[in-house]
Amino acid sequence: MKRLHPDSLIEQQKDEILQGLIEFVRFPSISTDPEHRPPLRACADWLRDRLTSIGIEAELRETGGHPAVVGRSEMHADRPTLLIYGHYDVQPVDPLALWNTDPFEPVLRDGRLFGRGASDNKGQIWAHIQAARLFHMTGTPLPANLVFLIEGEEEIGSPHLTPVVEALAKEYQFTSVIVSDTGMPGPGQPALTNGLRGLAYFEVVLTGANTDLHSGIFGGAVPNPAQALTHMLAACKDPQTGRILIPGFYDDIEPVSEKERASIAGVSFSDKAFQEQLGLAALEGEEGFSSLERRWIRPTFDINGLTSGFQGEGAKTVIPAEARCKVSMRLVPGQDPDGVEILFRSFLESIRPPSIQMEISVIHGARPYHLDIDHPLVEAGLQALKAGFGVEPVIIREGGSVPIVQTFKQVLGTETLLLGLGLPDDRCHAPNEKFELDNLWAGIRTSVDLLYRLGRG
Amino acid sequence: MKRLHPDSLIEQQKDEILQGLIEFVRFPSISTDPEHRPPLRACADWLRDRLTSIGIEAELRETGGHPAVVGRSEMHADRPTLLIYGHYDVQPVDPLALWNTDPFEPVLRDGRLFGRGASDNKGQIWAHIQAARLFHMTGTPLPANLVFLIEGEEEIGSPHLTPVVEALAKEYQFTSVIVSDTGMPGPGQPALTNGLRGLAYFEVVLTGANTDLHSGIFGGAVPNPAQALTHMLAACKDPQTGRILIPGFYDDIEPVSEKERASIAGVSFSDKAFQEQLGLAALEGEEGFSSLERRWIRPTFDINGLTSGFQGEGAKTVIPAEARCKVSMRLVPGQDPDGVEILFRSFLESIRPPSIQMEISVIHGARPYHLDIDHPLVEAGLQALKAGFGVEPVIIREGGSVPIVQTFKQVLGTETLLLGLGLPDDRCHAPNEKFELDNLWAGIRTSVDLLYRLGRG
Repeated sequence: MKRLHPDSLIEQQKDEILQGLIEFVRFPSISTDPEHRPPLRACADWLRDRLTSIGIEAELRETGGHPAVVGRSEMHADRPTLLIYGHYDVQPVDPLALWNTDPFEPVLRDGRLFGRGASDNKGQIWAHIQAARLFHMTGTPLPANLVFLIEGEEEIGSPHLTPVVEALAKEYQFTSVIVSDTGMPGPGQPALTNGLRGLAYFEVVLTGANTDLHSGIFGGAVPNPAQALTHMLAACKDPQTGRILIPGFYDDIEPVSEKERASIAGVSFSDKAFQEQLGLAALEGEEGFSSLERRWIRPTFDINGLTSGFQGEGAKTVIPAEARCKVSMRLVPGQDPDGVEILFRSFLESIRPPSIQMEISVIHGARPYHLDIDHPLVEAGLQALKAGFGVEPVIIREGGSVPIVQTFKQVLGTETLLLGLGLPDDRCHAPNEKFELDNLWAGIRTSVDLLYRLGRG
Repeated sequence: MKRLHPDSLIEQQKDEILQGLIEFVRFPSISTDPEHRPPLRACADWLRDRLTSIGIEAELRETGGHPAVVGRSEMHADRPTLLIYGHYDVQPVDPLALWNTDPFEPVLRDGRLFGRGASDNKGQIWAHIQAARLFHMTGTPLPANLVFLIEGEEEIGSPHLTPVVEALAKEYQFTSVIVSDTGMPGPGQPALTNGLRGLAYFEVVLTGANTDLHSGIFGGAVPNPAQALTHMLAACKDPQTGRILIPGFYDDIEPVSEKERASIAGVSFSDKAFQEQLGLAALEGEEGFSSLERRWIRPTFDINGLTSGFQGEGAKTVIPAEARCKVSMRLVPGQDPDGVEILFRSFLESIRPPSIQMEISVIHGARPYHLDIDHPLVEAGLQALKAGFGVEPVIIREGGSVPIVQTFKQVLGTETLLLGLGLPDDRCHAPNEKFELDNLWAGIRTSVDLLYRLGRG
């Protein structure tokens, strides 16, 4: 089979590749805003046409919300079938005043493309589309069957995507999924993300008396829900060791191999720079783990919000009738949000004062994801990154959650290779988002190389 | 000396007494609202004229805020001089929609006068003014020299009153102060208040990173100020015993005599009714003390407000940059806000995690007040209440603070007799405030009797 060598091709095609990405970023495809429904659909139509023009048979799949763009290459029974996932929707732009240029009028400067969605996720999915385009342009047979799934609701939690994935599961037999929607530790440091934490997010509401009470008249003889809340939350975590004290919380956690801990230890990371960047007097975390391990392979317990009683200027001597908190736990492989919910509820119930009523509601849950470091996909991904970036990549995990990856595993039965092209300073979700063109070119090279490695290369 | 017997006089004068009180309540003398400055001054002018008309030489004393009305009877060197304190300002009326009748168009119904300020404090100070009026009307010599001090800023914390009290201290030698601005346990249960708790009110602000952080990306490796706050606040109080754990907090508290504890034990009070009224599943408080003791003779530690991070609907997985709380301690005799501030600051400092910055600010302070149960004023007050109400009164304390009483003690060097005419259901500071006319008549009788007991009777 004739092999595609992307380097000189990319060099020739730079203007055209960039022009396409600029058009893509120009769509104000803000999924959370109902007024942006027309540009979302226009963006999806445009993507469909782009895919069609490079030999990918594409269509819009209607959902209860914004449509998903699904495209497929010619299918050959003797080739593996890969799902390439991305999203065309973007975050809102506010505060608009902090943007140096119009978020939807992309600007090229110093080897970067500035605009909302440039990095998250238009630039990253564009790298894979352009890889497919190079094959098409040059008439080179694709080493694998490709199915593109580019959705329009990732930034609002993919509420309608599972049925689309279920339909794809009936149509194709996928061998793996490729996603570029994560990050690299820094410029020139390509990374394969082999783990994502899960999430269990709750709201706890404690209630005391049927009304706020005067702290002078009643204080001393009545329960204070704000006080009960501090005691109950404080009981959840040891401030000295950083250990979570909810009984059973750590029981099911899968051990992390020595090989993976060694790999994490090899990732360049400065505690001092991290601390200084955050303006912190000191770092803190669970005893016996490094900062990266605390962020990647260990679970957390964090209070995300507290609210009770009088919060304005000055004094109001009130015993609050109610106290609320938002609490979330990041989960690691072996844990799942349903199990954690049972442990959390029963622990809080066991320490609830009899004077206080409690309600706990689940706000969000996501299962953690982990791709074993010895899985063949990992080696293929690392080799492709090395080919694309020209340097040795690292294996990282990420502390956040990408729930769709679990959906792929459960519905398609396949693992996902996470090859992020974003940098920590890309300002995703913030003003002046940008994407590094070096990562675009390296991403295209990586994608081409990966297709050979995973396909009939 | 000819003695005044108020009973039949009050009976004859009821309409006139009530008509005057209705005029008094009609002034919308809301001290916190700058737009109500004219009616406050009109109310003060009206009061001055009323006092003058009953032989009390009265004037407005200008302050930095609303004027104080000061009136004095004829002064006789051989008679003791009593200060009668009250206030003509009232609380705001909102929520107005919850009033059954116009708050400033007083309505008589079922032996009650409804209107803002009817109980707090216009009806109560009116009883003392009417007592003086009965002496004047009948040409009966006053047994004591009277100085009225009726201020216009009590509901906003009496910010300009101390200079007025200091001036009075130079003009007169007071033997005692009489205040009716407290409460009775219930209808037909007259009460002398011999103690008020003090107050130490703080705001604590804890700061972590220089910005809110994503709990997925950073969680586990950075401090969470909301978490630190729960640990630090939880450390201040033992949830089992209800004891405050700030070292030294109880050290200076003056012991309460067996006689006074016995007196408190004699006050009729139902824990069950109290709990049901508040809709509580259980009461709670310091081990070894009754509910009334917990509210009257024991100090407290209460969280009045908590605020941190994301408090809206749904999820935002943020590690807050900051967490704040409002905390107040009610103080009992022997404690003072400055001493408690030192203990509180040094305790929090000792348990502050090194990763967290802390700022503590003092919002309010008030010293506790206590009149010894064996002080002669107490006996005089009890006898006067018995004469006025026709039943045995009880001695109570109140859990709140009336800072002006400490000012009287410090500036005038005199003790204050607190003879409250308000009922727990008078709805002071709330919609549909009312005052019981039975307490008005009993209050006038009490006042007349007291003047004989404290004067040259």
